[in-house]
Amino acid sequence: MTQTLDAPATSSSTQDRVDAWLAAFESALTARDVERAAGMFAATSFWRDLVAFTWNLKTVENPDGVAHLLRATLEQTDPTGFRTTEPPDEADGVTTAWIEFETAVGRGRGLLRLDADDKAWTLLTTLYELKGHEEPKGTARPKGAEHGANRDRETWAEQREREAAELGYKTQPYVLVVGGGQGGIALGARLRQLGVPTIIVDKRGRPGDQWRSRYKSLCLHDPVWYDHLPYIKFPENWPVFAPKDKIADWLESYTKVMELNYWSNTEAKSASYDEKTGEWTVEVEREGQPLVLKPKQLVLATGMSGKPNIPTIDGMDTFRGDQHHSSAHPGPDAYAGKKAVVIGSNNSSFDICGALWEKGADVTMVQRTSTHIVRSDTLMDIGLGALYSEEAVASGVTTEKADLIFASLPYRIMHEFQIPLYDQMRERDQDFYDRLEKAGFLHDWGDDGSGLFMKYLRRGSGYYIDVGAADLVANGDVKLAHGQVTRLTEDAVVLEDGTELPADLVVYATGYGSMNGWAADLISPEVADTVGKVWGLGSDTTKDPGPWEGEQRNMWKPTQQEALWFHGGNLHQSRHYSLYLALQLKARAEGLDTPLYGLQEVHHTS
Amino acid sequence: MTQTLDAPATSSSTQDRVDAWLAAFESALTARDVERAAGMFAATSFWRDLVAFTWNLKTVENPDGVAHLLRATLEQTDPTGFRTTEPPDEADGVTTAWIEFETAVGRGRGLLRLDADDKAWTLLTTLYELKGHEEPKGTARPKGAEHGANRDRETWAEQREREAAELGYKTQPYVLVVGGGQGGIALGARLRQLGVPTIIVDKRGRPGDQWRSRYKSLCLHDPVWYDHLPYIKFPENWPVFAPKDKIADWLESYTKVMELNYWSNTEAKSASYDEKTGEWTVEVEREGQPLVLKPKQLVLATGMSGKPNIPTIDGMDTFRGDQHHSSAHPGPDAYAGKKAVVIGSNNSSFDICGALWEKGADVTMVQRTSTHIVRSDTLMDIGLGALYSEEAVASGVTTEKADLIFASLPYRIMHEFQIPLYDQMRERDQDFYDRLEKAGFLHDWGDDGSGLFMKYLRRGSGYYIDVGAADLVANGDVKLAHGQVTRLTEDAVVLEDGTELPADLVVYATGYGSMNGWAADLISPEVADTVGKVWGLGSDTTKDPGPWEGEQRNMWKPTQQEALWFHGGNLHQSRHYSLYLALQLKARAEGLDTPLYGLQEVHHTS
Repeated sequence: MTQTLDAPATSSSTQDRVDAWLAAFESALTARDVERAAGMFAATSFWRDLVAFTWNLKTVENPDGVAHLLRATLEQTDPTGFRTTEPPDEADGVTTAWIEFETAVGRGRGLLRLDADDKAWTLLTTLYELKGHEEPKGTARPKGAEHGANRDRETWAEQREREAAELGYKTQPYVLVVGGGQGGIALGARLRQLGVPTIIVDKRGRPGDQWRSRYKSLCLHDPVWYDHLPYIKFPENWPVFAPKDKIADWLESYTKVMELNYWSNTEAKSASYDEKTGEWTVEVEREGQPLVLKPKQLVLATGMSGKPNIPTIDGMDTFRGDQHHSSAHPGPDAYAGKKAVVIGSNNSSFDICGALWEKGADVTMVQRTSTHIVRSDTLMDIGLGALYSEEAVASGVTTEKADLIFASLPYRIMHEFQIPLYDQMRERDQDFYDRLEKAGFLHDWGDDGSGLFMKYLRRGSGYYIDVGAADLVANGDVKLAHGQVTRLTEDAVVLEDGTELPADLVVYATGYGSMNGWAADLISPEVADTVGKVWGLGSDTTKDPGPWEGEQRNMWKPTQQEALWFHGGNLHQSRHYSLYLALQLKARAEGLDTPLYGLQEVHHTS
Repeated sequence: MTQTLDAPATSSSTQDRVDAWLAAFESALTARDVERAAGMFAATSFWRDLVAFTWNLKTVENPDGVAHLLRATLEQTDPTGFRTTEPPDEADGVTTAWIEFETAVGRGRGLLRLDADDKAWTLLTTLYELKGHEEPKGTARPKGAEHGANRDRETWAEQREREAAELGYKTQPYVLVVGGGQGGIALGARLRQLGVPTIIVDKRGRPGDQWRSRYKSLCLHDPVWYDHLPYIKFPENWPVFAPKDKIADWLESYTKVMELNYWSNTEAKSASYDEKTGEWTVEVEREGQPLVLKPKQLVLATGMSGKPNIPTIDGMDTFRGDQHHSSAHPGPDAYAGKKAVVIGSNNSSFDICGALWEKGADVTMVQRTSTHIVRSDTLMDIGLGALYSEEAVASGVTTEKADLIFASLPYRIMHEFQIPLYDQMRERDQDFYDRLEKAGFLHDWGDDGSGLFMKYLRRGSGYYIDVGAADLVANGDVKLAHGQVTRLTEDAVVLEDGTELPADLVVYATGYGSMNGWAADLISPEVADTVGKVWGLGSDTTKDPGPWEGEQRNMWKPTQQEALWFHGGNLHQSRHYSLYLALQLKARAEGLDTPLYGLQEVHHTS
């Protein structure tokens, strides 16, 4: 056990207070005294549970919410052994403690924050392993060599070869993951470690092609400390913002060394669920050959962005130049000296405009609604630095700890913590925003000034992390036009005010739909509607209609369609939430009872 | 800075004593008072320097040796800033301190052991980086993304492609590494990080084939904690003893993600050095196409085992069955039900005998001289556990620390530390050894009872790490014969006592020559003789003739042939010593002065 020498001073009374709270909480839980336990939470308080109590991702609020959760889950969960794992610390009247505990079936860890009155303000509880199904790692790692003489010996290579030949043909996967980007790969690695037979299918040629196929100057917009995959961290020489082909090569190598059953060149064509047998029938085409798979669980990991939104515009069929959605943009190489009109003003648009300008195209960006822009360096310094940076790692905040700290901040109040950060950013980069405004760019900070990360969680769109292209707009190198597009002519884009923008190329950087669009295509529109909108918090802000959900809709947890799951997000989410999704799947594979608390209702179908 | 809570108690006086020694040592060095500095070492003492003072790997003994080293190196080295990096600890009258220091050109770390009289008993000094040439990692890692708009942007993928197209054709590598096993790969990774243009050539089809091509049941004989490569550690789920194909896949992925310029299917045909231009001319054949490379430095990393020893035996040409050296053995598959005679009784022989028996061959091992056997589990528990194990890692002994502790034990007295370990092993496995002896197996513990690791360092042969095949010999499943082979008939092996062993297959598990055999083939017999024997300590034990060398002959350090280097060994040595070899090469690439202390003399040519 290690402890940082220069950690904040911890008085033994802080430890005593936390110990007392944990003992009293456990005593109330053991006595099944729900009211007493709920009474230990502050009037305004939040308990977030990731699978440990609820077999769900769930946040409840205030003593009433805590009581509601406990009444439904306490008997089955039978939690015990609450203890701190390192000395708690205290700052600004809040005491923060890392804790561990056990349930009837598993082991958990979490983070507790007590207010000055020794009431719980926030509690995070997470499951990290199932008893009897611990991952073979560390002291429990496999031996590898099978010592002794054995005439029936099957070597590692032979086992792998047999598994690859049989899985999907002679034997069926328990889980089928559709989509082999970082989400599918991270989940596949977790399931592999848990011994759950899994196939990942992806229509592209090899792992990483999701990145390779994108425009050539693309680099990750999130820094390395935020991006680690499970089990194998990026090495210390890894770039802060990895170039797309480099991350692609990493994902490909990772898939190989983690021994995933990853089927490239495989498209999932249709899927249907038989409630009676509890089995999916999924038609796939692997290397051109049709095959039917019969998994028990189906995970869509086809990208949190959902299907491309391609607008229907009068005259699209008469336009003579190239036109495509941003997701299908081949890069700028063919457009040197050409006139390009890029419709939209978020991340994809800026990235594509920048690359086209670099190649010598004449570029116009069409801004239809306002966009939020943050400079990459500023975002890293102010937005992520405390949790995900070289300094954070040096001060003991490992990626794993950072993930839990992050997870412990309730979505309900997260914007309150974000607003001051974006105020700082506005101040630091005031000149930059002044220049953008002067150029006529419509800029916003989100409905409530909470900035980029909340936009990401609420709607997954509406922003640009500036890596340089904003200056091109500010200084006029990339021209700016405003308004809706009413029609296309043979050689121009026409806006609602009559402006004609001559064009050899039109790029629709018009965003993506909800992920349940994938379910509509693969399964049926009915199932997509049954599941409802995917992503968003119900914050009642632009593109994230209420009511309040408390968690991201349908992500990494049971949906209204039995045995259908959604997984995805950025590298951070792919890493962190893949653990909880994998544990939910493992529990089902082992036939454990998984009584669900608080299955979400569907309020929106897209 | 972290500190283990349950570390051995450290009294402040221990810290004071070490601080006082370091201050006095630095004061003597700063005053260039060699006698005073040397007087701070015990009458029997050892200073091992890895590149920091000597630009060599060098151990000197006793105050005389220390004075000799300092007289030659002190002025140029100008060492300063000696300090501890964590509280020293004291046990059994020896105080052990982790230290850091600087030299005129670099930064170093090491380990100091003081005796009860506050004299230095052992001192390890190592260079870990050159000032102004620090590796881009951690806080200095590359940014990756190049923010801003730039019409001359070259992406990471384009840079890699251009480098791959130009290096060896338009531009010349500074270093050519011949041999792409773990040694060549680890060195290549270090040189890449240091920005030294390097090509690794290997005749096989892809990285890892050095392992893939070996017999199918092979697993590493050393445990995972001992085997890490630089920069990317094996993940926590990695097997203790990795199967050969798994380690091969890892090496292949590692080569890719570390961006090495690794030329597969490339054979080095000849090499010659021009003293005037300081340049090698190396003829290679890459994918069948001849090409001349002009590196400044040539590293042979073709395997510490050197070239196969294939005996010349009467009748070899008349034998009708299969015969080959162990290194060319294709595995047992073709030999079910056949009679196999394996000549030799060390690692290769046991592994091959075991695999042939498993496949159902009728196997006879011919033992010519005695062999040392240790059971794998026992070796791991008693031999390596303190430094390389899950427990060691948990108690703060990282692989990097373990490597330095290991390096700090002087070769001169290492056997004294080894003997009691092997006494323990003998006791633990007494039954096992009794059974072997009863079966007629000739067993030894090394000339001085110091066991396996000393045999490895002294001669690189003469032992077997038992993973199961020893029992086959003990119980007679694999038959045992003794004596020299005098001739082969059409279908049998004949021993000196006249015994005829019927054979469909003869495997010559007859070991390997010195690594300078590779130099003889590639460069010339004259250069091989100039360089002399490679490997071994000069311990004056079997196959390691004296005089005492103090370090491994010719490994990882300058040889009598300018610009020719040898690199290799097990995964531990490939990892650890590649750093010092890489720093020596980097210093030369940058034109730094590298005055060499104590270039070894040549006492044996093979």
